[in-house]
Amino acid sequence: MREPKAFFFDIFGTIVDWREGVAREARAVLHPLGHDMVWTAFADAWRGQYQAGMEEIRSGRQPFSKLDVVHARNLERILGDFGLSDISDETKRQLVLAWHRLDAWPDVARGLSILRKHGLLAPVSNGNFSLMAALARRNNFHWDAILGAEYARDYKPKAGVYLSACEAFDLTPGECMMVAAHSDDLKAAAECGLMTGFVARPNEKGPGKGESEPRIPVDAAGDDLFELATKLFR
Amino acid sequence: MREPKAFFFDIFGTIVDWREGVAREARAVLHPLGHDMVWTAFADAWRGQYQAGMEEIRSGRQPFSKLDVVHARNLERILGDFGLSDISDETKRQLVLAWHRLDAWPDVARGLSILRKHGLLAPVSNGNFSLMAALARRNNFHWDAILGAEYARDYKPKAGVYLSACEAFDLTPGECMMVAAHSDDLKAAAECGLMTGFVARPNEKGPGKGESEPRIPVDAAGDDLFELATKLFR
Repeated sequence: MREPKAFFFDIFGTIVDWREGVAREARAVLHPLGHDMVWTAFADAWRGQYQAGMEEIRSGRQPFSKLDVVHARNLERILGDFGLSDISDETKRQLVLAWHRLDAWPDVARGLSILRKHGLLAPVSNGNFSLMAALARRNNFHWDAILGAEYARDYKPKAGVYLSACEAFDLTPGECMMVAAHSDDLKAAAECGLMTGFVARPNEKGPGKGESEPRIPVDAAGDDLFELATKLFR
Repeated sequence: MREPKAFFFDIFGTIVDWREGVAREARAVLHPLGHDMVWTAFADAWRGQYQAGMEEIRSGRQPFSKLDVVHARNLERILGDFGLSDISDETKRQLVLAWHRLDAWPDVARGLSILRKHGLLAPVSNGNFSLMAALARRNNFHWDAILGAEYARDYKPKAGVYLSACEAFDLTPGECMMVAAHSDDLKAAAECGLMTGFVARPNEKGPGKGESEPRIPVDAAGDDLFELATKLFR
């Protein structure tokens, strides 16, 4: 394997823990208003609308909207199930911003610190620029650029998202590695010619409900991002 | 004046010294091949093609190309004047990369360090992502995102470049400040509703040939970026 010149990162699940973060932030917004629920179930239900919401755009049925807008649309679909049909527009806006306030998994800082010595680093996420910038400030990520869906005006796993990221850095796909905790993301990247780095996040969707092993052949794999980085550059 | 939530930066001339840098890097490429010339005159001639090269794209006569491509086209126009008609494609490629190897003015690190405590920071330059990322690595800039021409697929001073930057950060134009050493850049930003911060770079184009004072009303002005930052947040 050649040494990658750039590392592209999936963010939700791979770099940050969306489930516990959305649950915590939703509670912070809704509990003072008198709502109570299993907050992780709310996070799971919201995330459960994720692919369907983006598929409207990937298929061309709707024009591109940034992920905050998709999150807001998806939120509308689950409000009734959680007794939230009457919340205000401002409360909905605060809930959408829950996705801007997620925390990195504990190994991420050390992993990125190693990878940064070896190549360019950029999120290639479905998250929009403002969301990526907010997560970076919160977690002190130092990206070389934000790339991904909003830059490409389409959503992963469409090829244009991966290829536009390579082109932005003047690199061929074979010079770049996509890093993700999701086999479908890595499969799409590999089909575009990128190298693939799998990070296990076995508890991403709840205890034991994430991927602990890749379901496809990958160029490198680690039990977390720090292990992946040390395997690549030991 | 409200406190800006984001600061957008012109890069060539405002943040980095393109003239001395291009002269130095062109010499490093061409002198070993036996060429000699007044290297700052070469830099000035190349930069002299800058607006005409972008105007082809702003006018719609040519589709968007990243600035590296515009720089390469502009280089072709001046090679003959400097006895360089016979240089190889690889030498031309190395010359284009001179623009990736420019140094910040000495006040920039301190200025950005102050501004970063008060808002999001992004280049809103005509330079492409790979060029902006290379300058950031070289000079240790910590941007929240790279925005500007390549993101907007058009060149300043077209309104879409400024407005797309505000939208990327979910901000209104009135919440953002454009920082530049060029009155025409600030004039266009102000017409879009952005606040304006002028930085004097009196020697940008050679001794005394830069702007030492803005030619239009601005919201803030400094003799350098550090002074601008301290005036805003004293």
